[in-house]
Amino acid sequence: MPKIVDHETRREEIAEALWRVVRRDGIRAASVRTIAAEAGWSAGAVRYYFPDQDGLLSFAMDLVTRRVTERIDALDPKGSALSIVLRYLEEALPLDAERRAEFDVWLAFMAQAQAESGTGTLHEHVDKVHNGLRQLCESLLQALAQSGTLRDGLDLRREVERLHAVIDGLSLHATIQPDRTTPARVRQLLRHHIESLLA
Amino acid sequence: MPKIVDHETRREEIAEALWRVVRRDGIRAASVRTIAAEAGWSAGAVRYYFPDQDGLLSFAMDLVTRRVTERIDALDPKGSALSIVLRYLEEALPLDAERRAEFDVWLAFMAQAQAESGTGTLHEHVDKVHNGLRQLCESLLQALAQSGTLRDGLDLRREVERLHAVIDGLSLHATIQPDRTTPARVRQLLRHHIESLLA
Repeated sequence: MPKIVDHETRREEIAEALWRVVRRDGIRAASVRTIAAEAGWSAGAVRYYFPDQDGLLSFAMDLVTRRVTERIDALDPKGSALSIVLRYLEEALPLDAERRAEFDVWLAFMAQAQAESGTGTLHEHVDKVHNGLRQLCESLLQALAQSGTLRDGLDLRREVERLHAVIDGLSLHATIQPDRTTPARVRQLLRHHIESLLA
Repeated sequence: MPKIVDHETRREEIAEALWRVVRRDGIRAASVRTIAAEAGWSAGAVRYYFPDQDGLLSFAMDLVTRRVTERIDALDPKGSALSIVLRYLEEALPLDAERRAEFDVWLAFMAQAQAESGTGTLHEHVDKVHNGLRQLCESLLQALAQSGTLRDGLDLRREVERLHAVIDGLSLHATIQPDRTTPARVRQLLRHHIESLLA
Protein backbone atom coordinates (compact mmCIF):
# COMPACT_ATOMS: atom_id res chain seq x y z
CA MET A 1 0.00 0.00 0.00
CA PRO A 2 2.55 2.61 -1.11
CA LYS A 3 0.01 5.45 -1.26
CA ILE A 4 -1.03 5.12 2.40
CA VAL A 5 2.57 4.95 3.59
CA ASP A 6 3.34 8.05 1.58
CA HIS A 7 0.51 10.06 3.15
CA GLU A 8 1.59 8.98 6.62
CA THR A 9 5.18 9.98 5.87
CA ARG A 10 3.98 13.39 4.73
CA ARG A 11 1.94 13.89 7.86
CA GLU A 12 5.02 13.01 9.92
CA GLU A 13 7.15 15.43 7.88
CA ILE A 14 4.68 18.20 8.70
CA ALA A 15 4.57 17.24 12.37
CA GLU A 16 8.38 17.32 12.49
CA ALA A 17 8.40 20.78 10.91
CA LEU A 18 6.01 21.82 13.68
CA TRP A 19 8.38 20.37 16.28
CA ARG A 20 11.26 22.42 14.84
CA VAL A 21 9.20 25.64 14.89
CA VAL A 22 7.99 24.96 18.45
CA ARG A 23 11.50 24.20 19.69
CA ARG A 24 13.02 27.24 17.98
CA ASP A 25 10.34 29.91 18.41
CA GLY A 26 7.86 28.59 20.97
CA ILE A 27 4.44 27.11 20.42
CA ARG A 28 2.69 30.42 19.75
CA ALA A 29 4.79 30.76 16.60
CA ALA A 30 3.37 27.51 15.18
CA SER A 31 0.78 28.34 12.53
CA VAL A 32 -0.09 26.62 9.24
CA ARG A 33 1.90 29.37 7.50
CA THR A 34 5.11 29.10 9.54
CA ILE A 35 4.99 25.30 9.49
CA ALA A 36 4.47 25.21 5.72
CA ALA A 37 7.48 27.55 5.31
CA GLU A 38 9.57 25.35 7.62
CA ALA A 39 8.61 22.18 5.70
CA GLY A 40 9.14 23.90 2.34
CA TRP A 41 5.49 23.34 1.37
CA SER A 42 2.60 25.60 0.44
CA ALA A 43 0.07 26.45 3.16
CA GLY A 44 -2.56 24.75 0.99
CA ALA A 45 -0.62 21.49 0.97
CA VAL A 46 -0.32 21.55 4.77
CA ARG A 47 -4.08 22.25 5.03
CA TYR A 48 -4.78 19.25 2.79
CA TYR A 49 -3.34 17.02 5.53
CA PHE A 50 -4.38 19.13 8.51
CA PRO A 51 -7.48 21.25 7.88
CA ASP A 52 -7.19 22.92 11.28
CA GLN A 53 -4.54 23.87 13.85
CA ASP A 54 -6.01 21.54 16.49
CA GLY A 55 -5.65 18.49 14.25
CA LEU A 56 -2.03 19.41 13.54
CA LEU A 57 -1.14 19.97 17.19
CA SER A 58 -2.84 16.70 18.13
CA PHE A 59 -0.95 14.76 15.49
CA ALA A 60 2.39 16.35 16.47
CA MET A 61 1.84 15.47 20.11
CA ASP A 62 0.61 11.94 19.32
CA LEU A 63 3.82 11.49 17.37
CA VAL A 64 5.77 11.97 20.64
CA THR A 65 3.72 9.25 22.34
CA ARG A 66 3.97 6.97 19.32
CA ARG A 67 7.75 7.26 19.09
CA VAL A 68 8.26 6.56 22.78
CA THR A 69 5.89 3.58 22.55
CA GLU A 70 7.64 2.23 19.44
CA ARG A 71 11.05 2.44 21.08
CA ILE A 72 9.71 0.70 24.18
CA ASP A 73 8.05 -2.06 22.10
CA ALA A 74 11.34 -2.60 20.26
CA LEU A 75 13.27 -3.21 23.49
CA ASP A 76 14.60 -6.68 24.16
CA PRO A 77 13.45 -7.61 27.69
CA LYS A 78 16.61 -9.50 28.61
CA GLY A 79 18.89 -9.10 31.61
CA SER A 80 18.13 -8.45 35.26
CA ALA A 81 14.77 -6.98 36.29
CA LEU A 82 16.59 -3.78 37.31
CA SER A 83 18.34 -3.36 33.97
CA ILE A 84 15.09 -3.94 32.04
CA VAL A 85 13.23 -1.37 34.12
CA LEU A 86 16.02 1.17 33.61
CA ARG A 87 16.09 0.64 29.85
CA TYR A 88 12.32 1.15 29.62
CA LEU A 89 12.36 4.33 31.69
CA GLU A 90 15.34 5.76 29.81
CA GLU A 91 13.26 5.75 26.62
CA ALA A 92 11.09 8.42 28.19
CA LEU A 93 14.05 10.56 29.39
CA PRO A 94 15.70 13.30 27.26
CA LEU A 95 19.05 11.48 26.98
CA ASP A 96 19.76 12.03 23.27
CA ALA A 97 18.80 14.58 20.59
CA GLU A 98 15.59 12.75 19.58
CA ARG A 99 14.31 12.37 23.13
CA ARG A 100 15.34 15.94 24.00
CA ALA A 101 13.26 17.18 21.05
CA GLU A 102 10.28 15.18 22.30
CA PHE A 103 10.62 16.56 25.81
CA ASP A 104 11.04 20.15 24.56
CA VAL A 105 7.87 19.85 22.50
CA TRP A 106 5.96 18.39 25.44
CA LEU A 107 7.28 21.19 27.68
CA ALA A 108 6.20 23.87 25.21
CA PHE A 109 2.72 22.29 25.01
CA MET A 110 2.61 22.13 28.78
CA ALA A 111 3.58 25.76 29.39
CA GLN A 112 1.13 26.95 26.76
CA ALA A 113 -1.67 24.67 28.04
CA GLN A 114 -1.03 26.24 31.45
CA ALA A 115 -1.26 29.75 30.01
CA GLU A 116 -4.61 28.72 28.47
CA SER A 117 -5.97 27.78 31.93
CA GLY A 118 -5.75 24.04 31.54
CA THR A 119 -8.53 23.29 29.06
CA GLY A 120 -8.71 22.42 25.37
CA THR A 121 -6.74 20.28 22.94
CA LEU A 122 -3.29 21.19 24.24
CA HIS A 123 -4.20 20.22 27.75
CA GLU A 124 -5.77 16.93 26.64
CA HIS A 125 -2.53 15.94 24.96
CA VAL A 126 -0.35 16.98 27.87
CA ASP A 127 -2.64 14.90 30.08
CA LYS A 128 -2.38 11.89 27.78
CA VAL A 129 1.44 11.89 27.75
CA HIS A 130 1.45 12.47 31.50
CA ASN A 131 -0.90 9.51 32.12
CA GLY A 132 1.11 7.33 29.71
CA LEU A 133 4.31 7.90 31.66
CA ARG A 134 2.59 7.23 34.98
CA GLN A 135 1.19 3.98 33.58
CA LEU A 136 4.66 2.97 32.41
CA CYS A 137 5.99 3.60 35.95
CA GLU A 138 3.10 1.56 37.34
CA SER A 139 3.61 -1.44 35.00
CA LEU A 140 7.33 -1.52 35.72
CA LEU A 141 6.97 -1.32 39.50
CA GLN A 142 4.24 -3.98 39.37
CA ALA A 143 6.56 -6.24 37.36
CA LEU A 144 9.29 -5.71 39.97
CA ALA A 145 6.79 -6.47 42.75
CA GLN A 146 5.61 -9.67 41.02
CA SER A 147 9.16 -10.87 40.47
CA GLY A 148 9.76 -10.41 44.20
CA THR A 149 12.51 -7.86 43.57
CA LEU A 150 10.78 -4.97 45.34
CA ARG A 151 11.25 -4.24 49.03
CA ASP A 152 8.46 -5.53 51.29
CA GLY A 153 5.91 -3.12 52.69
CA LEU A 154 6.15 -0.47 49.99
CA ASP A 155 3.01 1.49 49.15
CA LEU A 156 3.01 0.83 45.42
CA ARG A 157 0.72 3.72 44.44
CA ARG A 158 2.88 6.15 46.36
CA GLU A 159 6.06 4.76 44.78
CA VAL A 160 4.55 5.08 41.30
CA GLU A 161 3.90 8.77 41.94
CA ARG A 162 7.34 9.32 43.47
CA LEU A 163 9.12 7.56 40.58
CA HIS A 164 7.07 9.57 38.08
CA ALA A 165 8.09 12.78 39.89
CA VAL A 166 11.77 11.75 39.88
CA ILE A 167 11.61 11.09 36.11
CA ASP A 168 9.94 14.39 35.24
CA GLY A 169 12.20 16.28 37.64
CA LEU A 170 15.33 14.75 36.09
CA SER A 171 14.00 15.50 32.59
CA LEU A 172 13.48 19.11 33.58
CA HIS A 173 16.95 19.38 35.11
CA ALA A 174 18.62 17.75 32.09
CA THR A 175 16.88 20.41 30.00
CA ILE A 176 17.72 23.41 32.21
CA GLN A 177 21.34 22.54 32.99
CA PRO A 178 22.53 19.90 30.52
CA ASP A 179 26.17 20.39 31.56
CA ARG A 180 25.41 19.56 35.16
CA THR A 181 22.59 17.04 34.74
CA THR A 182 24.27 15.04 31.97
CA PRO A 183 22.73 11.88 30.46
CA ALA A 184 25.23 9.81 32.51
CA ARG A 185 24.19 11.61 35.71
CA VAL A 186 20.49 11.15 34.95
CA ARG A 187 21.08 7.40 34.47
CA GLN A 188 23.00 7.19 37.78
CA LEU A 189 20.33 9.03 39.71
CA LEU A 190 17.52 6.98 38.19
CA ARG A 191 19.36 3.71 38.94
CA HIS A 192 19.98 4.88 42.50
CA HIS A 193 16.31 5.70 42.94
CA ILE A 194 15.13 2.30 41.64
CA GLU A 195 17.76 0.53 43.76
CA SER A 196 16.44 2.26 46.85
CA LEU A 197 13.12 0.45 46.21
CA LEU A 198 14.63 -3.02 45.86
CA ALA A 199 14.80 -5.73 48.52
CA MET B 1 11.54 57.22 52.99
CA PRO B 2 8.04 57.24 51.54
CA LYS B 3 9.19 58.07 48.00
CA ILE B 4 11.53 55.06 47.72
CA VAL B 5 8.89 52.70 49.09
CA ASP B 6 6.42 54.09 46.59
CA HIS B 7 8.74 53.48 43.63
CA GLU B 8 9.42 49.95 44.78
CA THR B 9 5.69 49.29 45.15
CA ARG B 10 5.12 50.57 41.63
CA ARG B 11 7.81 48.34 40.22
CA GLU B 12 6.20 45.38 41.98
CA GLU B 13 2.79 46.37 40.60
CA ILE B 14 4.23 46.31 37.10
CA ALA B 15 5.96 42.98 37.71
CA GLU B 16 2.69 41.52 38.96
CA ALA B 17 0.88 42.77 35.85
CA LEU B 18 3.57 40.97 33.83
CA TRP B 19 2.94 37.79 35.83
CA ARG B 20 -0.77 37.98 35.04
CA VAL B 21 -0.11 38.46 31.31
CA VAL B 22 2.43 35.62 31.27
CA ARG B 23 0.11 33.26 33.12
CA ARG B 24 -2.88 34.11 30.95
CA ASP B 25 -1.36 34.52 27.47
CA GLY B 26 2.17 33.09 27.66
CA ILE B 27 5.47 34.93 27.87
CA ARG B 28 5.57 35.97 24.21
CA ALA B 29 2.51 38.13 24.85
CA ALA B 30 4.38 40.16 27.49
CA SER B 31 5.39 43.53 26.00
CA VAL B 32 5.59 47.00 27.55
CA ARG B 33 2.28 47.75 25.78
CA THR B 34 0.30 44.70 27.03
CA ILE B 35 1.73 45.03 30.53
CA ALA B 36 0.88 48.73 30.69
CA ALA B 37 -2.70 47.89 29.60
CA GLU B 38 -2.91 45.14 32.22
CA ALA B 39 -1.64 47.46 34.97
CA GLY B 40 -3.89 50.30 33.81
CA TRP B 41 -0.88 52.54 33.11
CA SER B 42 0.50 54.29 30.06
CA ALA B 43 3.34 52.61 28.19
CA GLY B 44 5.47 55.68 29.00
CA ALA B 45 4.90 55.21 32.74
CA VAL B 46 5.99 51.57 32.51
CA ARG B 47 9.08 52.60 30.52
CA TYR B 48 9.95 55.14 33.24
CA TYR B 49 10.47 52.21 35.62
CA PHE B 50 11.68 49.67 33.07
CA PRO B 51 13.40 51.25 30.05
CA ASP B 52 13.73 47.86 28.35
CA GLN B 53 12.04 44.46 28.20
CA ASP B 54 15.07 42.66 29.68
CA GLY B 55 15.04 44.82 32.81
CA LEU B 56 11.33 44.14 33.27
CA LEU B 57 11.65 40.36 32.80
CA SER B 58 14.61 40.30 35.19
CA PHE B 59 12.72 42.21 37.85
CA ALA B 60 9.63 40.00 37.47
CA MET B 61 11.70 36.87 37.83
CA ASP B 62 13.73 38.27 40.76
CA LEU B 63 10.41 38.96 42.45
CA VAL B 64 9.71 35.19 42.44
CA THR B 65 13.05 34.50 44.14
CA ARG B 66 12.58 37.36 46.58
CA ARG B 67 9.11 36.22 47.66
CA VAL B 68 10.23 32.63 48.22
CA THR B 69 13.24 33.88 50.19
CA GLU B 70 11.11 36.25 52.29
CA ARG B 71 8.66 33.47 53.16
CA ILE B 72 11.53 31.18 54.10
CA ASP B 73 13.20 33.87 56.24
CA ALA B 74 9.90 34.44 58.04
CA LEU B 75 9.59 30.78 59.05
CA ASP B 76 9.92 29.89 62.70
CA PRO B 77 12.49 27.07 62.91
CA LYS B 78 10.74 25.19 65.72
CA GLY B 79 9.69 21.57 65.93
CA SER B 80 11.39 18.38 64.79
CA ALA B 81 14.14 18.52 62.18
CA LEU B 82 11.79 16.74 59.75
CA SER B 83 8.94 19.20 60.22
CA ILE B 84 11.29 22.19 59.77
CA VAL B 85 12.72 20.76 56.55
CA LEU B 86 9.23 20.10 55.20
CA ARG B 87 8.02 23.60 56.00
CA TYR B 88 11.03 25.13 54.22
CA LEU B 89 10.60 22.99 51.11
CA GLU B 90 6.86 23.61 50.96
CA GLU B 91 7.54 27.32 50.48
CA ALA B 92 9.03 26.45 47.10
CA LEU B 93 6.14 24.17 46.05
CA PRO B 94 2.98 25.40 44.24
CA LEU B 95 0.62 24.59 47.12
CA ASP B 96 -1.49 27.75 47.12
CA ALA B 97 -2.51 30.42 44.62
CA GLU B 98 0.55 32.63 45.26
CA ARG B 99 3.05 29.80 44.91
CA ARG B 100 1.19 28.41 41.87
CA ALA B 101 1.53 31.80 40.20
CA GLU B 102 5.26 31.82 40.93
CA PHE B 103 5.72 28.34 39.51
CA ASP B 104 3.65 29.14 36.39
CA VAL B 105 5.77 32.21 35.71
CA TRP B 106 8.97 30.22 36.19
CA LEU B 107 7.64 27.51 33.88
CA ALA B 108 6.75 30.03 31.17
CA PHE B 109 10.25 31.54 31.45
CA MET B 110 11.74 28.06 31.29
CA ALA B 111 9.83 26.93 28.20
CA GLN B 112 10.61 30.19 26.41
CA ALA B 113 14.30 30.13 27.46
CA GLN B 114 14.39 26.62 25.99
CA ALA B 115 12.84 27.83 22.72
CA GLU B 116 15.56 30.51 22.62
CA SER B 117 18.29 27.83 22.79
CA GLY B 118 19.30 28.34 26.37
CA THR B 119 21.08 31.71 26.25
CA GLY B 120 20.24 35.27 27.27
CA THR B 121 18.43 36.96 30.13
CA LEU B 122 15.58 34.47 30.40
CA HIS B 123 17.94 31.57 30.75
CA GLU B 124 20.07 33.36 33.35
CA HIS B 125 17.03 33.84 35.52
CA VAL B 126 15.80 30.28 35.10
CA ASP B 127 19.30 29.17 36.09
CA LYS B 128 19.33 31.41 39.15
CA VAL B 129 16.01 30.08 40.48
CA HIS B 130 17.12 26.53 39.68
CA ASN B 131 20.40 26.98 41.57
CA GLY B 132 18.60 28.65 44.48
CA LEU B 133 16.31 25.65 44.95
CA ARG B 134 19.21 23.20 44.72
CA GLN B 135 21.08 25.22 47.36
CA LEU B 136 18.03 25.13 49.62
CA CYS B 137 17.89 21.31 49.24
CA GLU B 138 21.61 21.17 50.03
CA SER B 139 21.40 23.33 53.17
CA LEU B 140 18.46 21.35 54.52
CA LEU B 141 20.03 17.94 53.92
CA GLN B 142 23.28 19.19 55.46
CA ALA B 143 21.36 20.39 58.52
CA LEU B 144 19.74 16.94 58.80
CA ALA B 145 23.16 15.28 58.44
CA GLN B 146 24.70 17.52 61.13
CA SER B 147 21.85 16.84 63.55
CA GLY B 148 22.49 13.11 63.05
CA THR B 149 18.97 12.57 61.68
CA LEU B 150 20.08 11.36 58.24
CA ARG B 151 20.71 7.70 57.47
CA ASP B 152 24.37 6.67 57.52
CA GLY B 153 26.24 6.13 54.28
CA LEU B 154 24.13 8.41 52.08
CA ASP B 155 25.88 10.17 49.21
CA LEU B 156 24.79 13.70 50.09
CA ARG B 157 25.42 15.24 46.67
CA ARG B 158 23.35 12.53 45.02
CA GLU B 159 20.53 12.96 47.55
CA VAL B 160 20.49 16.73 46.98
CA GLU B 161 19.98 16.13 43.26
CA ARG B 162 17.34 13.47 43.83
CA LEU B 163 15.41 15.63 46.32
CA HIS B 164 15.60 18.58 43.91
CA ALA B 165 14.20 16.32 41.12
CA VAL B 166 11.39 15.09 43.39
CA ILE B 167 10.43 18.70 44.21
CA ASP B 168 10.40 19.91 40.61
CA GLY B 169 8.61 16.75 39.47
CA LEU B 170 5.91 17.19 42.11
CA SER B 171 5.55 20.88 41.20
CA LEU B 172 5.07 19.92 37.57
CA HIS B 173 2.51 17.24 38.44
CA ALA B 174 0.59 19.57 40.76
CA THR B 175 0.41 21.97 37.82
CA ILE B 176 -0.61 19.42 35.16
CA GLN B 177 -3.17 17.46 37.19
CA PRO B 178 -4.12 19.54 40.25
CA ASP B 179 -7.09 17.24 41.01
CA ARG B 180 -4.86 14.19 41.25
CA THR B 181 -1.67 15.74 42.63
CA THR B 182 -3.39 17.85 45.29
CA PRO B 183 -1.48 20.00 47.81
CA ALA B 184 -2.19 17.33 50.47
CA ARG B 185 -0.79 14.59 48.19
CA VAL B 186 2.32 16.65 47.37
CA ARG B 187 2.95 17.12 51.12
CA GLN B 188 2.52 13.36 51.76
CA LEU B 189 4.87 12.38 48.94
CA LEU B 190 7.50 14.93 49.98
CA ARG B 191 7.32 13.78 53.62
CA HIS B 192 7.61 10.16 52.51
CA HIS B 193 10.67 11.00 50.41
CA ILE B 194 12.44 12.83 53.25
CA GLU B 195 11.54 10.05 55.71
CA SER B 196 13.15 7.51 53.37
CA LEU B 197 16.44 9.39 53.95
CA LEU B 198 16.24 9.39 57.74
CA ALA B 199 17.97 7.01 60.16
